[in-house]
Amino acid sequence: MKREFTESDILAMEQRYRATFINSLSGYKNIVLIGTKSTQGKENVAIFNSLFHIGANPALCGIIVRPDVTPRHTLRNILETGSYTINHIPFEIYRNAHQTSARYSEEDSEFVATGLTPAYIVGIQAPYVAESHTRFACSFEQRIDLAINGTILIIGKIVFASVHERSLEKDGYINHATVENIVGGGLDGYYRASTIGRLSYAKVGEELREL
Amino acid sequence: MKREFTESDILAMEQRYRATFINSLSGYKNIVLIGTKSTQGKENVAIFNSLFHIGANPALCGIIVRPDVTPRHTLRNILETGSYTINHIPFEIYRNAHQTSARYSEEDSEFVATGLTPAYIVGIQAPYVAESHTRFACSFEQRIDLAINGTILIIGKIVFASVHERSLEKDGYINHATVENIVGGGLDGYYRASTIGRLSYAKVGEELREL
Repeated sequence: MKREFTESDILAMEQRYRATFINSLSGYKNIVLIGTKSTQGKENVAIFNSLFHIGANPALCGIIVRPDVTPRHTLRNILETGSYTINHIPFEIYRNAHQTSARYSEEDSEFVATGLTPAYIVGIQAPYVAESHTRFACSFEQRIDLAINGTILIIGKIVFASVHERSLEKDGYINHATVENIVGGGLDGYYRASTIGRLSYAKVGEELREL
Repeated sequence: MKREFTESDILAMEQRYRATFINSLSGYKNIVLIGTKSTQGKENVAIFNSLFHIGANPALCGIIVRPDVTPRHTLRNILETGSYTINHIPFEIYRNAHQTSARYSEEDSEFVATGLTPAYIVGIQAPYVAESHTRFACSFEQRIDLAINGTILIIGKIVFASVHERSLEKDGYINHATVENIVGGGLDGYYRASTIGRLSYAKVGEELREL
């Protein structure tokens, strides 16, 4: 049985119900920890559910940031230092990752408060999360303000990547399920992933093959 | 064991290896079928892996479109008609969904060619995918050209939603695993999802609870 909602039904939803509904309607979310360091040297880590691929050549990714909510230290640090790391979240730290969304003060490091371990790559200013098996570093490339709702699109160039060898296939494909990276849903939901497989390049009139 | 890649390692990758690596590095992908209709009345459906949430009030979502590749009919139809549907993909149709990425000619409908069923909602011009248990309709709001790599961000407003009642929780949360919606990875990878759970709103100094 389907439940249907018209535009006026959506507009009439109680505010928190609508936030939960619309956030989860868009589907599974790629959920990561973003590590930054302030110009004063304070380490920061925050959970984001809005990472997306923009292009492979140049290697670019985007995140959507709401300027008025919790991860505002992250935004400021990215803009001031140009450096950030993106760390996928294995199952064993998903509660620690969720806890980074609490409103810690400027003086507290979310790393210390949530039991995550900062570590460094030579030449990269921002800390990464040592517990992550799939992580990469970005240099800030462009900020696009989305006037339609006041959010900000941050585009970064991928300048370093570190992946577990178990997850890396021969042709460059990274299988996130092999290292138990989790999937997000809505604002507070989490899923495990298990591999179905990969399919061949689709052509008109040809059967698909499992790769 | 980690495999590490510097910026020059990434630049030196063979082109297809880099596309596969960078596409999968960004993590799990929210993968959907977008249904449109041309001004001549031709029905079109195409798989996209770049849907993301922008905001709940107004209810907005974004997709990144490469203007030079397969789903160009989708882009043209969205811009010309202003109407499109977004349909999550249950496991039972993931091969059909993948097949929509073949380069069908203007005369062929991907619905017919891939065995998917178009259906209509009163007042919405674009067809939805009848096999989908979680789907919504958008009206085109804004196009933002990303000069950095020639891709296009299409922002839409959610004007209708239909979800399976089994997937809808009391507070508006939609659990995509209950209807076996799949997760994407890279350009050709697929995963199943299973529910871990939801966590309470994180506060400084408070234990998280399972919701």
